Amino acid sequence: MLDKIFNPKSIAVIGASSIEGKVGHAIMKNLMAFGKNNPDNKIYPINPKYDEILGIKCYKSVLDVLPDNIDLAVITIPAKLIPNILEECGKKGIKGAVIISAGFSEVGNYELEEKVKSIAKKYNIRIIGPNCLGIINMHNRLNASFSKEYFKEGNITFISQSGAILTAILDIAPLLNLGFSKIVSLGNKIDIQESDLMEYLIHDDTTEVVVFYIEGLKDKKFIESAKKLAKIKPIIALKSGKTEAGAKAASSHTGSLAGDAQIYNAAFKKGKVLTVETFEELVNLMHVFSTQPLMKSNKIGIITNAGGFGVIAADSCKKYGLTIEEFEESTREELKKYLPPTSSISNPLDLIGDADTDRYKNALNIVKNDKNIDGMLVILTPQEMTKPLEVANVIVETKNKIKNEGIGKPIVASFVGGASIKGAKSYLRKNGVPAYISPENGVEVLSSSYKYNKMKIKEDNCDYLNSIKKELLKIKENYKDIVKNLLKNPNEYNSKEFLKIHGMNVPRKYLAKTIEEAEDYASKLDNIVMKISSPNIMHKSDAGCVIVKPKDIKEAFNTIMENGKKYLEKNRIKGVIDGVLIEEYIEGLEVIVGGKRDPVFGPVVMVGLGGVFVEVLKDVSFGIYPITKDYALDMLRELKSYKVLEGIRGRPKRDINFIVDIMIRLGVIMDIYPEIKEIDINPLFVKEDGKGGYVGDALIIVGK
Amino acid sequence: MLDKIFNPKSIAVIGASSIEGKVGHAIMKNLMAFGKNNPDNKIYPINPKYDEILGIKCYKSVLDVLPDNIDLAVITIPAKLIPNILEECGKKGIKGAVIISAGFSEVGNYELEEKVKSIAKKYNIRIIGPNCLGIINMHNRLNASFSKEYFKEGNITFISQSGAILTAILDIAPLLNLGFSKIVSLGNKIDIQESDLMEYLIHDDTTEVVVFYIEGLKDKKFIESAKKLAKIKPIIALKSGKTEAGAKAASSHTGSLAGDAQIYNAAFKKGKVLTVETFEELVNLMHVFSTQPLMKSNKIGIITNAGGFGVIAADSCKKYGLTIEEFEESTREELKKYLPPTSSISNPLDLIGDADTDRYKNALNIVKNDKNIDGMLVILTPQEMTKPLEVANVIVETKNKIKNEGIGKPIVASFVGGASIKGAKSYLRKNGVPAYISPENGVEVLSSSYKYNKMKIKEDNCDYLNSIKKELLKIKENYKDIVKNLLKNPNEYNSKEFLKIHGMNVPRKYLAKTIEEAEDYASKLDNIVMKISSPNIMHKSDAGCVIVKPKDIKEAFNTIMENGKKYLEKNRIKGVIDGVLIEEYIEGLEVIVGGKRDPVFGPVVMVGLGGVFVEVLKDVSFGIYPITKDYALDMLRELKSYKVLEGIRGRPKRDINFIVDIMIRLGVIMDIYPEIKEIDINPLFVKEDGKGGYVGDALIIVGK
Repeated sequence: MLDKIFNPKSIAVIGASSIEGKVGHAIMKNLMAFGKNNPDNKIYPINPKYDEILGIKCYKSVLDVLPDNIDLAVITIPAKLIPNILEECGKKGIKGAVIISAGFSEVGNYELEEKVKSIAKKYNIRIIGPNCLGIINMHNRLNASFSKEYFKEGNITFISQSGAILTAILDIAPLLNLGFSKIVSLGNKIDIQESDLMEYLIHDDTTEVVVFYIEGLKDKKFIESAKKLAKIKPIIALKSGKTEAGAKAASSHTGSLAGDAQIYNAAFKKGKVLTVETFEELVNLMHVFSTQPLMKSNKIGIITNAGGFGVIAADSCKKYGLTIEEFEESTREELKKYLPPTSSISNPLDLIGDADTDRYKNALNIVKNDKNIDGMLVILTPQEMTKPLEVANVIVETKNKIKNEGIGKPIVASFVGGASIKGAKSYLRKNGVPAYISPENGVEVLSSSYKYNKMKIKEDNCDYLNSIKKELLKIKENYKDIVKNLLKNPNEYNSKEFLKIHGMNVPRKYLAKTIEEAEDYASKLDNIVMKISSPNIMHKSDAGCVIVKPKDIKEAFNTIMENGKKYLEKNRIKGVIDGVLIEEYIEGLEVIVGGKRDPVFGPVVMVGLGGVFVEVLKDVSFGIYPITKDYALDMLRELKSYKVLEGIRGRPKRDINFIVDIMIRLGVIMDIYPEIKEIDINPLFVKEDGKGGYVGDALIIVGK
Repeated sequence: MLDKIFNPKSIAVIGASSIEGKVGHAIMKNLMAFGKNNPDNKIYPINPKYDEILGIKCYKSVLDVLPDNIDLAVITIPAKLIPNILEECGKKGIKGAVIISAGFSEVGNYELEEKVKSIAKKYNIRIIGPNCLGIINMHNRLNASFSKEYFKEGNITFISQSGAILTAILDIAPLLNLGFSKIVSLGNKIDIQESDLMEYLIHDDTTEVVVFYIEGLKDKKFIESAKKLAKIKPIIALKSGKTEAGAKAASSHTGSLAGDAQIYNAAFKKGKVLTVETFEELVNLMHVFSTQPLMKSNKIGIITNAGGFGVIAADSCKKYGLTIEEFEESTREELKKYLPPTSSISNPLDLIGDADTDRYKNALNIVKNDKNIDGMLVILTPQEMTKPLEVANVIVETKNKIKNEGIGKPIVASFVGGASIKGAKSYLRKNGVPAYISPENGVEVLSSSYKYNKMKIKEDNCDYLNSIKKELLKIKENYKDIVKNLLKNPNEYNSKEFLKIHGMNVPRKYLAKTIEEAEDYASKLDNIVMKISSPNIMHKSDAGCVIVKPKDIKEAFNTIMENGKKYLEKNRIKGVIDGVLIEEYIEGLEVIVGGKRDPVFGPVVMVGLGGVFVEVLKDVSFGIYPITKDYALDMLRELKSYKVLEGIRGRPKRDINFIVDIMIRLGVIMDIYPEIKEIDINPLFVKEDGKGGYVGDALIIVGK
């Protein structure tokens, strides 16, 4: 369907104009190349005021274009006129529209936007925009946008939520010799979302790299489509607007730690989308992904004519997680033949200040075959004997050899300097070798290449998750009424009962409503902890409502009940106190596992170590449902405190599988009980490896 | 003295040559501009093979240059000939030399290097190099180097340990319109070090910014000189080679955590040297520091014609610690007059896609006076209505107004695009406005400007440190023999006695050599902890040699002694076991404080929270002696775990002043006892605020 938009044969420009400076005129001008590209391509300016525009016959309405069909309508007329015009498009049988015009939800006109949406739905018209710059397909010379003319066929499709950023990219492109397949300005996204485009691009032969600039998503299928596409074509995204909003209103720990940025990062990771931090990085990556094979391991080879920059690059490798292995013995032997006797043959390879073209040539030829090297960075600074343009040519030759010989290693260049190396740099870029201004850039892009490759090949095994899901769905069915009752009053006791039913270990516990009951229950357990039971007191310790190993049960009961009442009064909460929980006292490493529901991405699971780790360092990790075993493990490994789980300095290894099981169950619970908004298991007591653990405290929040 | 090197009147080029491609020829050619710059400037080629070079009379030896004096000798002859030649220079009365020639310690010729050093000392000749590129002083057209000719007078002095990096900078300079005062290639640094240059530059009127590329320092006066210079002129440094070497051999905690990078960072911070992470950042900062006033607060104002880039810049501000405050009411009112009604007047200020020159002009004029803004970033992307060159001109005008009106705020530009904005960018640079390729760069440089300003104005109060030093020096004097004895066998008992004498609180403790003694001592204390006493068992817990609150003293004594013996046997250590320490059991927050001695910077003090913080997160902070009160507090505030000291979630605030006191004492101890190599106080038990604490365990390592 989207093919009518990107590969139309006939285009109506609704709001075409003869007046320079008008959008309808800019678009007509930009479409001239399309008209000339293929004799079958047709352009129909639509405007009741004109008979012809730029020498092309103009129509009063799309309905007047007879007997021809129209594939795509590009609409530039004022917003309020669009519903009527779109009706006409529908009647004409047009199936694709790009609405350039602004004046919809972005200025508060939600109603008008809804109207346009419903007309599009009625006639089955797919829409890009409104409030966008338009689209470009460089391969058929289609520029249905009002950005300046630039055509260079390539394999990058750039999709942006900001017109200005598209314009900037198109302005930079010639400088870096970047070629594109499609350029898409998304605007308000009333119909076509990121996922629609990704699904389309899976089968688009001219697209090999997909680049996004995203401010916010409302696309529930984003992850799913991204995952499919990313398996065959790298997706790179810059997400701006890293606010902590959203997190503010939440009442659970999980909710309050789940900022926008954390969730987006988890979502991108899940979708195998490579995220970048800066605009510069986005531009740098386009170059390497559009021209070079992926880096298969993190082993880099560095070749330089300046020792200092070699050291700087090596520092960068540490930062970006690349390793600098020694060359193979055979490489070293071979290199010795061509390098001066004083040079120490090691990686980074210093060709020394008097390196000439031959020295670069020989070094590249040899190093490219080294098995300890999976990607190459060639550094050059202006030196007496070094001829930048010749070296550039050698690098291009090496790149071609790598390709022809099926070696499959990326090669990038960092030429550091000004006027002396300018020509060489643009020669490299023109011939498909990324060239950067600093050694750090070169290292960074190679590390991203490796990072994406690693991400891409990772396959999650869903067996365990599926078995848990099956088990919990059965439980949901069997315990329907019980669960319903528990969720009605999700105090600690009920929350734990709920989790227990769903296969989680909880300590033995009793709810005491009177001192007598409390004393009776306490006598049944060895060590106990006493806590208030109330759905309205979230942070029980802070409220003075938790007593560990009480000496006097009666006194403890009274203290807890009183503090509970005081807390409710002080915070003016009309709440219920159900009594005091008498619970088996459990020890173990404290972990926090939580869940919340994201409006776009659905259930989100959080994990971290308790205490200072979560409170001071906010060292938590987020994942988007579904949580498989491997995925849960990855989430744990992301924690700075992961080593604590593995056991440090003689302390025992903890039962990581147990934590993983809880994470998976929590994810499934969030999935199959849409009425649950947030869950905190805090602490989860984790015993030594193989010994499981217990849900120490739990908080379930029900509702929207 | 260095003035003879940078502002000579007469220069001898020893090894001058007529043959193109030779260094002696390149230097002669480069010096021609110097000769022409002032009729008083004299150049004397020295080479027995020639009568004249490039039209200048050539001498066989400097001794033949009669009756004239020679200020500076530039030496390019082979290394082995240099001692004799330098003798001649000395006899001639030459006081400054730049030795370009390589072939000294860098290739293992330490002896030759020492010989040159001693001759220089004998005749009082100050030397730059050997093995360097030479020096340049752009203000008197002196290019005594073999780098290409580039003269643009400016206020930056660039000092580099790598010739290639100097060459690269000089090649980039014209592109960015960077002007320099001095360029110095340091080479092997046998005489003139960084500190010598910094002391000289304090009084050098043409230098306003000092930039370093450093691979390693051997300059013991670096911090002291840097501090003096940085008070009046910003110092920026890129340090490469961030290895963890040096840390490997250490046996204390402190030693093993103190990598090269950590210590250099602490040293640079102490010297108020602004450090950068990448070469690109170094170049970017040169521009802003050489042209703009410092940023007085972290409040930035952002003006853009692309909302998207405004958001990206705002994200960056969060990363770099700049805040985006709302404009003053008066600014908002004023802006309203000139902006379209749909634009929301807030910071970042979006001038919207159709922004023309006047809109930029008005916005800049108004925002520059806003009291909530102390630095401005102007973003521009190519848009239909935006004229980059005109806007550039407006920015330059604003910069001039800021200067003339004494407003004192930096202004930088990020023009994002390619061909469309190239001319505008170079116009900005030519007229003293830093122009960057991405919004993030603009934010980064402003944040560095603020960071340096904050660093610069910070004054340490030394009163408390001085009083402690006085106290401890007296103790050293009074307890001479006792201290000597304690340091002879620095086991835990003696280490603690040592620290106790020097004013640190230690728990009551007894050294028991027999079971009977142990039982006797134990009866004198409430709660006890028993530990092995041996200078050879460093990590007592790991060796099973610590028992907390033992139930049976006899059993505990035996276990500890046996485990101690086993440990020594297992590790094949010929060691002493002095007995078992019976100590008062203390509780408190565990902190680690340590000291080590750096070969260049002297005593280093480390602090961090104990347990997982130091073991897993390596969350420790380093400082270089002297440690003042403010400095110690800063070190603590650098810790990620600092919040724990302040008390989190109802837990008590800890006695921070107590920790500071210990840090200061430790620093002084390291200073006045050069025989101490490393000290670990681990743990230091810290009580609640105002209640002090105790040295829980201590380890002193004596020796080189």
